Amino acid sequence: MCRWLAYSGAPILLEDVLFKTEHSLIDQSLSATNSITTTNGDGFGVGWYGSRDVPGVYRDIRPAWNDRNLQAIAAQIESQMFVAHVRATTGTPVQRTNCHPFTHGKWLFVHNGSINEFEKLRRDLVFAISPELFPFIEGSTDSELMFMLALTFGMEGDVEAGIARMAGFVEELAGKHGVEDALQMTLGISDGESLYAVRYSTEGKSRSLFHSASRDATETIAPEAGRFSRFARAVVSEPLSDLEDEWVLVPESTFVTITMGDVTCEPFAPIAP
Amino acid sequence: MCRWLAYSGAPILLEDVLFKTEHSLIDQSLSATNSITTTNGDGFGVGWYGSRDVPGVYRDIRPAWNDRNLQAIAAQIESQMFVAHVRATTGTPVQRTNCHPFTHGKWLFVHNGSINEFEKLRRDLVFAISPELFPFIEGSTDSELMFMLALTFGMEGDVEAGIARMAGFVEELAGKHGVEDALQMTLGISDGESLYAVRYSTEGKSRSLFHSASRDATETIAPEAGRFSRFARAVVSEPLSDLEDEWVLVPESTFVTITMGDVTCEPFAPIAP
Amino acid sequence: MCRWLAYSGAPILLEDVLFKTEHSLIDQSLSATNSITTTNGDGFGVGWYGSRDVPGVYRDIRPAWNDRNLQAIAAQIESQMFVAHVRATTGTPVQRTNCHPFTHGKWLFVHNGSINEFEKLRRDLVFAISPELFPFIEGSTDSELMFMLALTFGMEGDVEAGIARMAGFVEELAGKHGVEDALQMTLGISDGESLYAVRYSTEGKSRSLFHSASRDATETIAPEAGRFSRFARAVVSEPLSDLEDEWVLVPESTFVTITMGDVTCEPFAPIAP
Amino acid sequence: MCRWLAYSGAPILLEDVLFKTEHSLIDQSLSATNSITTTNGDGFGVGWYGSRDVPGVYRDIRPAWNDRNLQAIAAQIESQMFVAHVRATTGTPVQRTNCHPFTHGKWLFVHNGSINEFEKLRRDLVFAISPELFPFIEGSTDSELMFMLALTFGMEGDVEAGIARMAGFVEELAGKHGVEDALQMTLGISDGESLYAVRYSTEGKSRSLFHSASRDATETIAPEAGRFSRFARAVVSEPLSDLEDEWVLVPESTFVTITMGDVTCEPFAPIAP
Repeated sequence: MCRWLAYSGAPILLEDVLFKTEHSLIDQSLSATNSITTTNGDGFGVGWYGSRDVPGVYRDIRPAWNDRNLQAIAAQIESQMFVAHVRATTGTPVQRTNCHPFTHGKWLFVHNGSINEFEKLRRDLVFAISPELFPFIEGSTDSELMFMLALTFGMEGDVEAGIARMAGFVEELAGKHGVEDALQMTLGISDGESLYAVRYSTEGKSRSLFHSASRDATETIAPEAGRFSRFARAVVSEPLSDLEDEWVLVPESTFVTITMGDVTCEPFAPIAP
Repeated sequence: MCRWLAYSGAPILLEDVLFKTEHSLIDQSLSATNSITTTNGDGFGVGWYGSRDVPGVYRDIRPAWNDRNLQAIAAQIESQMFVAHVRATTGTPVQRTNCHPFTHGKWLFVHNGSINEFEKLRRDLVFAISPELFPFIEGSTDSELMFMLALTFGMEGDVEAGIARMAGFVEELAGKHGVEDALQMTLGISDGESLYAVRYSTEGKSRSLFHSASRDATETIAPEAGRFSRFARAVVSEPLSDLEDEWVLVPESTFVTITMGDVTCEPFAPIAP
Repeated sequence: MCRWLAYSGAPILLEDVLFKTEHSLIDQSLSATNSITTTNGDGFGVGWYGSRDVPGVYRDIRPAWNDRNLQAIAAQIESQMFVAHVRATTGTPVQRTNCHPFTHGKWLFVHNGSINEFEKLRRDLVFAISPELFPFIEGSTDSELMFMLALTFGMEGDVEAGIARMAGFVEELAGKHGVEDALQMTLGISDGESLYAVRYSTEGKSRSLFHSASRDATETIAPEAGRFSRFARAVVSEPLSDLEDEWVLVPESTFVTITMGDVTCEPFAPIAP
Repeated sequence: MCRWLAYSGAPILLEDVLFKTEHSLIDQSLSATNSITTTNGDGFGVGWYGSRDVPGVYRDIRPAWNDRNLQAIAAQIESQMFVAHVRATTGTPVQRTNCHPFTHGKWLFVHNGSINEFEKLRRDLVFAISPELFPFIEGSTDSELMFMLALTFGMEGDVEAGIARMAGFVEELAGKHGVEDALQMTLGISDGESLYAVRYSTEGKSRSLFHSASRDATETIAPEAGRFSRFARAVVSEPLSDLEDEWVLVPESTFVTITMGDVTCEPFAPIAP
């Protein structure tokens, strides 16, 4: 199991969010409190939007807590929207191409959770990916295939529908193979303009997901940044501070959209193929 | 393009063959003379048979020439049959799961060459792998798929037939997609009892492949080993010494079998599906 | 803080001790129970004696729990004496040359603990290493310097005296710099014939250290090895099983020698310069 | 032997200089033409100045040519002053702390060359470093010690004098040890405001060093950047293009200063201690 974080708001140094909070994502890589696996040391990644059309992505197989390159990069790069992830593998190899975020064009995608009995379903999942996207498969995780399937099912035109069809496809396929509790996921997605997040699991007991409560949450998200922003929002697997009223638990089966600091939560349900 | 080496004979320290020859594989990783790409620095691997049923495999993404772990392991491990490979990627990521040798049960497999316009053919190649073998795909190279296809087509029962059907399948598929010069390969394969090697290309201009001339070639293959062996043979992309009469060029379109020091060369031709 | 393990006895596959016990060293790398730091994910190493004069050493910066090369090597190599270590850095960089075991000629050396306020003392420690040994310094840890100092102070002729003089030197130097609680250490040392272990700290509250109770402890140390050995002994930071009477806590300030299965414990005290 | 590059001018994407030239530094890592060692695959690094007081530094042990993180970072980061280096080790371990640029406060430092018979001189070099700087030694290269010595000898107040005293110290020390041809170096140095470069060797046959000829050299240095800059200058081990009149060979024993596009060349001579 993994932990992730997404930020949207005024441009901010990555380190102010990734390193300089009470219970930062990097701390969580060493010792997550809400997580089944307490250590998320099997690689990490961060994707950010700058001045280019496509995001930058830095992924490595070291534990995030001991990577000085990450520290140096996070101390230099300012971004108005970024997504970071620390990984605990559920079996697939520790290699950069299995680290999140996955990227395609302007899109970033992170996942916490798994497809149940993935090895049983993997072949059918792979072949449901559109031939145009097939050459972009680089790793061997369920997460990357979920991303490719969502793209196949139209995520670029309608994020929620693409994800819902992906989830519906996975659940139907699992049913055919007699696999129960098919899908467990929190997702973080961005196209550089909006942040999207999903909390869903087939069994209805999903991994935790929170968003920052306030529309002006720089102090919660980046207490050492020393500035105030009206549009700073974060979505996180685990709160970055112990102040409970600063973080809102995303309900089960919810699709979250964050645009310019505004949070919209809608019910999420898979769409069967 | 890559370089590889396979050894069969009396048990010998890996380092005596890998490091201590005039023009060793490790030297070739820095500067191959017969190769289009002069540097093979995108990872390496060695697989060896010891006292277990399955071979040991050590693969890493560093250049072979600067890996001290490889030096230490090669200085300790003796083996009667091993295969080593230095990689120059043709585009796929540098990660352990893309390094050779690939392994499955008791089998080891290395490849020098490529499938032409691989991205065009990749999906259909993956599709043709048997569902039982599908979960074992870990990387993203053409080489791994060639191995999986050969296994699918019966390599474990008949090595030559499995390889020939794989080659035939690849060529037919390439034809359908309008891809010329489909296959370029030298292969090194072992089940721990025999060594198999193939030199073949669709266009009939295959990468170089040599076997040691003598049945008692310890001095050629491992000059510093300080012992004499009647059954020492090596197959190599490039000779380990400049003594030309010690190395025999494997002819185009040839399947080589080495068992207990005996070399058998047969014509090789793909078998269309 | 780190965890380590040393084995002496009949030749055994490394994996039987490193991986296949109830609470193996590899498990401890993910989650140590007696340790201040619960995660030991900042690299690892194993040194073993085979048929050569010098030991083999394999060290890498990944967490031990996700390194397939370690699994493959441990499944192939049998050894009658080996030492393994999982690291949690106290600040020095995560690089192979900072991973244990350190080696010099036939010697292996692992350390759990630290020199207090190391940065203050480092220069004088480096200065005290004999000029002959100076070129062999490769990393930047206190542990490596402790090894070099013990060698400087005659460890190769008399292990206990060399260690005691090293400890005495460190404590005296710390005193000059006003550093309290100078030394915290458990050490594992081998020359390929005997195992040596030390449990000592200036403040008298040393990290835990245990040796297996029985002279014939294969079942405790390697329950799946499926054989019986009269001389199998292990020294460990943390017991490999919950059976309390199978493990003996090494007392504070003790020097342990294990030769052919016999354990000798003597009081240990630093020798001031 | 290594290759390096330094840029000063209007802010530019790193990739426009590092990747998108006729004979880029990344190409030189695979195959340098003026270099004794043709492959520079033992790690790389880039240091750049952004909006912070200290530069960002990204160093890794992979070959530069196959690192996707480097590509991604170079595609996102714009900088007005940066230094990049590809390494070919002369024996010291391949680890991040041995990769250039070295950094201290606002300073960046890269080196191509070596101290002759370094192992003989290393101990005395280390002890000549000021105790204040001693704790910052992290690696094991001659290059890092040269940087630390230059800082010890006042480089922060007077770059040329600090370097000259360092060179004088090394040469005198080498003399005492009977080591000839003590020093071989091209250096690239920056404090974020000016670029400094040195070409010098004891024997008077120094490694090559060039600066771009024009004051408005964007087209030479970054032909695909698609803009014009009056202050773009580069200093390089090897020209980035074949247009000979665009590159000026720095004479033997020369100290170069580049500020706001202006190049000043002065004779350089070591200052004996």
